[in-house]
Amino acid sequence: MASRTLDELIDMLARLPGLGPRSAKRAALHLLKNRDTVLRRLAITLAKAAEDVCQCSVCGNLDDVDPCHICADPKRDSAQICVVEAVDDLWAVERSGLFRGHYHVLGGTLSAIDGIGPEQLGIDNLISRVEAGVLEVILAMSATVDGQTTGHYLADRLGTTNATVTRLAHGVPVGGELNYLDDGTLGAALKARRPVDRSATDL
Amino acid sequence: MASRTLDELIDMLARLPGLGPRSAKRAALHLLKNRDTVLRRLAITLAKAAEDVCQCSVCGNLDDVDPCHICADPKRDSAQICVVEAVDDLWAVERSGLFRGHYHVLGGTLSAIDGIGPEQLGIDNLISRVEAGVLEVILAMSATVDGQTTGHYLADRLGTTNATVTRLAHGVPVGGELNYLDDGTLGAALKARRPVDRSATDL
Repeated sequence: MASRTLDELIDMLARLPGLGPRSAKRAALHLLKNRDTVLRRLAITLAKAAEDVCQCSVCGNLDDVDPCHICADPKRDSAQICVVEAVDDLWAVERSGLFRGHYHVLGGTLSAIDGIGPEQLGIDNLISRVEAGVLEVILAMSATVDGQTTGHYLADRLGTTNATVTRLAHGVPVGGELNYLDDGTLGAALKARRPVDRSATDL
Repeated sequence: MASRTLDELIDMLARLPGLGPRSAKRAALHLLKNRDTVLRRLAITLAKAAEDVCQCSVCGNLDDVDPCHICADPKRDSAQICVVEAVDDLWAVERSGLFRGHYHVLGGTLSAIDGIGPEQLGIDNLISRVEAGVLEVILAMSATVDGQTTGHYLADRLGTTNATVTRLAHGVPVGGELNYLDDGTLGAALKARRPVDRSATDL
């Protein structure tokens, strides 16, 4: 419809998650309007990312260095491993600022249909790391069927090690209103109810 | 939060219209997961677009060649010029398949606040093109205040030429339901009502 280069650009942009064909066109025109400040810089950044960003051979995190800055940080507790499905889950846990241990990024969930078994998720590698002296493994899986199935499998496999296996608490999200909550969450929150500590600030 | 390269990539992606910080993260991970098929190819396409795509010196369209393939096409009618605000408006008119003339892409609308005057929109260039023998100028502006103001100014300026100046019809959009239409559109459609041609297939 437009020039071949422009068509190709729109086609490539439309493959990004979150951009449809229409917004890809808008993005392409925006890029061409800001050729030096956005278009050229984005091209360079993408090429750099393709070369520099690598997967940490220890935990599966993405970083410029291998091992990643979390695995290499001597101030972090190597006796705790938090298992997450994906790198953005790792980022979410990091944002909470409450975890100072190491990670294991599965890179997906077990799925017979998609042919994703324990090998694809590096679970043997996780078991060897845990056997080398980890005290606690926190399963921070999504509360989806796939996430929970993978969590159960991991808990099973980790049963042979000496580590304590924990999982994230289910319950009312902070800021969540009860009448908008789904029944499953409310049920989980009720079952896991805790005695009120009158001295604590959180209810 | 993550690696510096990755942070930079997310930051650059978040500047694209249509991608927020959250979807930029998702896009970055998607790119890194598909390094050869998407990431590297997108980097190359962007660099190529930065070099190859240029603005047509005649009409302002974006293309790999100057003059653009529309201005250079001998089968198109150079006696008709369709004035549009932006390149994506040109694409929209092209998609309709009903216009076989040439274009003038303003690259914006008149705006005293943003300092966009007739010079920025290449209006002198348009006038000279029209004076060189154009029979009809179609003002295909958006039905917004800015678009219509610019249209009025252009109609005024083009009054000194011999060309007929027309504008797009306002009315009920094809497929539009009356009870969802705004009053302005319905009013315009009523004022511009047309006798029913019993032999024609469109009502």
